[in-house]
Amino acid sequence: MEISARNKMKGKVTSVSKGAVNAEVTIQLPGGDEIVSIVTNSSVEKLKIEVGKEAYAIVKASNVMLGVD
Amino acid sequence: MEISARNKMKGKVTSVSKGAVNAEVTIQLPGGDEIVSIVTNSSVEKLKIEVGKEAYAIVKASNVMLGVD
Amino acid sequence: MEISARNKMKGKVTSVSKGAVNAEVTIQLPGGDEIVSIVTNSSVEKLKIEVGKEAYAIVKASNVMLGVD
Amino acid sequence: MEISARNKMKGKVTSVSKGAVNAEVTIQLPGGDEIVSIVTNSSVEKLKIEVGKEAYAIVKASNVMLGVD
Amino acid sequence: MEISARNKMKGKVTSVSKGAVNAEVTIQLPGGDEIVSIVTNSSVEKLKIEVGKEAYAIVKASNVMLGVD
Amino acid sequence: MEISARNKMKGKVTSVSKGAVNAEVTIQLPGGDEIVSIVTNSSVEKLKIEVGKEAYAIVKASNVMLGVD
Repeated sequence: MEISARNKMKGKVTSVSKGAVNAEVTIQLPGGDEIVSIVTNSSVEKLKIEVGKEAYAIVKASNVMLGVD
Repeated sequence: MEISARNKMKGKVTSVSKGAVNAEVTIQLPGGDEIVSIVTNSSVEKLKIEVGKEAYAIVKASNVMLGVD
Repeated sequence: MEISARNKMKGKVTSVSKGAVNAEVTIQLPGGDEIVSIVTNSSVEKLKIEVGKEAYAIVKASNVMLGVD
Repeated sequence: MEISARNKMKGKVTSVSKGAVNAEVTIQLPGGDEIVSIVTNSSVEKLKIEVGKEAYAIVKASNVMLGVD
Repeated sequence: MEISARNKMKGKVTSVSKGAVNAEVTIQLPGGDEIVSIVTNSSVEKLKIEVGKEAYAIVKASNVMLGVD
Repeated sequence: MEISARNKMKGKVTSVSKGAVNAEVTIQLPGGDEIVSIVTNSSVEKLKIEVGKEAYAIVKASNVMLGVD
């Protein structure tokens, strides 16, 4: 499926930490930036997210804020 | 101010496109990835967002989804 | 790509209304419910969203609230 | 109270799974689609959400993405 | 309808600015804080939002970030 | 850093409740309103959020809904 979310960044999963309902997953981008995601445990299992695997961090543009120094 | 949002990625503004209420702003990360953000025009003005300026794309972890090929 | 968003509901596009930056798109589900989405105009074009076409409404579980009468 | 969220879909609660802070609640729509929601445990208690009860899944339009096959 | 969103703050509408698709609405709380909301024009019309009218700003807890000086 | 989020409300932390991945934090505004936030435990630790401390509740305008009685 192709989705409307404007931001899809490919990287490698570097950590998966599961709680009771949600899990915290970290993805490292090629440039070195790390992106942290909170998804449900069910999604981690459904997508077979594991450390070392390639995955995309996906963000809808309206959920991106801006900051300046 | 230091904020709780886990994802803050520094890059350079490559486009600003204003509508009546919202604006679409694109930031290019050092690794080449581009991040698109929708913020209000007021925010673009308040932060003086302009093409060529450095800025951060900021995303709360609960707004990051995952995808796999 | 397979994505983590838990909610993917297939329906038919019944309206597309474009603004300067964002567009409002309505999808009718087989059960009759209508779902309204705000996405960028670029996404409408990229996905070739048009009235009459089949499309999915996709929602991350953490963005679904509950209500009771 | 009447709220601005454009999407309100009525269904029946089919599962409630509580964690330490958040709970995962599934609602089945009349057409058969299931919608998964993550809300706080406090909200589950405040609204007396239970399996078999009728409830609405509520989503702000800006949180709905689109997908095409 | 009673909804799960944990944050409902009552105030008075102090401005309504409509675009092509979305509108920006400002609500002033009794303590003086102002809250800015982006909703669709359709919602402004459906709820008859007007300057001077009382309204609630409603926010799901997972959409609230924290900051410290 | 200065951020684009339009809503920044200063108050005092009145409760912090940690789960396995996420924490629920309550902030009381000067006017008496309480704002509940769900952030990751890591953010609570990074910002040293504690009961009695001053903190800001920060919300992107597109995440604010409206309601009327």
